[in-house]
Amino acid sequence: MDEFSFINSIKPSTYSQSSLLKGIGDDAAVFRADYRDVVTAVDTMVEDVHFSKATTEPYHIGYRCLAANISDLAAMGATPAYYMVSLVIPDRWSEEALQHIYNGMNQLAKSYRMDLIGGDTVSGEQLMLSITVFGYVTPGKSRMRSHARPGDVLFATGTLGDSRAGLALMLEEASISDRVAYDFFVRRHQLPEPRVAFAEELNGLDRLALNDISDGIASEANEIAEASQLSLHIDIEQLPVHPSMKQFNHYLDWVLNGGEDFELLGAVAEQDWPSVVKAAEITGVDVTKVGHVTERMKEAQVFLYEKGTRKRLDKSGYTHLKSDR
Amino acid sequence: MDEFSFINSIKPSTYSQSSLLKGIGDDAAVFRADYRDVVTAVDTMVEDVHFSKATTEPYHIGYRCLAANISDLAAMGATPAYYMVSLVIPDRWSEEALQHIYNGMNQLAKSYRMDLIGGDTVSGEQLMLSITVFGYVTPGKSRMRSHARPGDVLFATGTLGDSRAGLALMLEEASISDRVAYDFFVRRHQLPEPRVAFAEELNGLDRLALNDISDGIASEANEIAEASQLSLHIDIEQLPVHPSMKQFNHYLDWVLNGGEDFELLGAVAEQDWPSVVKAAEITGVDVTKVGHVTERMKEAQVFLYEKGTRKRLDKSGYTHLKSDR
Repeated sequence: MDEFSFINSIKPSTYSQSSLLKGIGDDAAVFRADYRDVVTAVDTMVEDVHFSKATTEPYHIGYRCLAANISDLAAMGATPAYYMVSLVIPDRWSEEALQHIYNGMNQLAKSYRMDLIGGDTVSGEQLMLSITVFGYVTPGKSRMRSHARPGDVLFATGTLGDSRAGLALMLEEASISDRVAYDFFVRRHQLPEPRVAFAEELNGLDRLALNDISDGIASEANEIAEASQLSLHIDIEQLPVHPSMKQFNHYLDWVLNGGEDFELLGAVAEQDWPSVVKAAEITGVDVTKVGHVTERMKEAQVFLYEKGTRKRLDKSGYTHLKSDR
Repeated sequence: MDEFSFINSIKPSTYSQSSLLKGIGDDAAVFRADYRDVVTAVDTMVEDVHFSKATTEPYHIGYRCLAANISDLAAMGATPAYYMVSLVIPDRWSEEALQHIYNGMNQLAKSYRMDLIGGDTVSGEQLMLSITVFGYVTPGKSRMRSHARPGDVLFATGTLGDSRAGLALMLEEASISDRVAYDFFVRRHQLPEPRVAFAEELNGLDRLALNDISDGIASEANEIAEASQLSLHIDIEQLPVHPSMKQFNHYLDWVLNGGEDFELLGAVAEQDWPSVVKAAEITGVDVTKVGHVTERMKEAQVFLYEKGTRKRLDKSGYTHLKSDR
């Protein structure tokens, strides 16, 4: 199949977003923001670097790459609207496999009424999928990492480390006898759910810092600390984990650094915490207080508390008994 | 150098666009459209497919990939504002070479006051550069391929086939003794100039169809014919070529199918033709009448006229003596 036929085969026949003026089929796409701010991000996945054909079905490649992008929109408090796809295709990939990649994206995109509005399909030696997403946010309501304030409650959605556990199970680096738990972890790896509805439900709050947990809570907490120039304090006993998680040897490493759970880490004023709990209830998401925010000591840092001991948690997830660097 | 250091080294220290609310450094970038429509496109280049390290310097890889994207904005009548860069880097590429790729992009971006607002840098086996661009256009003034009308004048900017000639000269598939002409063609290949200012200058016109000549005028003319459901008629003697072009054996093939000149092909009402000429004068661009537009015969087609003979020109650049397919 040549490039034109493939593009035609994936070109949407109808569009969902009323703000779209021109989708696929001209030099560029055109849309109207209508008094909302535009939020955009790009995420790129490469075969044998971010996924292996052996453990990841083409459907899940498409799904996960778009999910990672949508999660970035959720972390800004934005509503997803559009996406564009760049795909580098090696000869050895079949048309059927490529169709499955698009099916994985389509399935997820449909649930957010996102339109595919452009892209590029070229040949190459290694499968590469790069997605650009576009969303809208109410002016002034972008949820920046720099928006944390001293006294804030620190919270996380869902449970942490699940995606990493699912990958370990598939790679047989770990095992678990409970079939239901096995399926849960694998599903969390293959079909992560970005927390869009939850973040949208918080639209009424004046201020809120959000970061999506794509690289692990250790990394994301440090990003908030640095952007806000504050110190974050996390209680290890409060970190939300699945009941079956603690039976894995490396579970703490996975919880702190696992990433790709696409949960949200947030900082919000104490008085707004009840609104966060309510938004979680309304949207069917679990939310857990995991710590708090203070003025920074010498530097903006993240501290981890375990049985009365305080350690510094760096962005790579290493802990340091000596608190100040 | 790790990914973080590299991203820091290319991260802009200041931004030019006043509508930018958040650039690099959060989950996503945020900007405000301010009553303008948003225009966006993505273009992907792969090593050994779109360029070879042997004939293309890293600086020109960056420059050309961004130029191709900006040209898509120009073809919509949009003003460039932002770009995001996804880069897949093989181990064998040096930090210095990567820096040159970014320098090539920066140089061009600066001349349009475009801000780099995001991206992704990952490792892989083959160099891949994918750029997403964003521009603004006055509502209703997007220059669609479907906007041609019967009676329109068809015009092209600049000269055609130059980039392909430049590549042939570098590959020693062709030769030319005139050093000034040699340099002209090579420069047109390495440092093409998107026609942004010219297209912006036409902002006063109510209606105008534009397409950028990225795949050759044969392909672009067919796209306008199909989108507008009209027939386009091109006089081969009127196609603008550089004085030294005709000494190459394959010159006509290059003029029709060369592509990557990033000139513009347009269709405009006869009465607006003087405005096009004036816009070209103001912005220092050559513009040439190359044909006209009529109602379609059986199908939307492109016809090429040479010494009284009419042939059908298909999108691959083949000509057919039998006019109707």
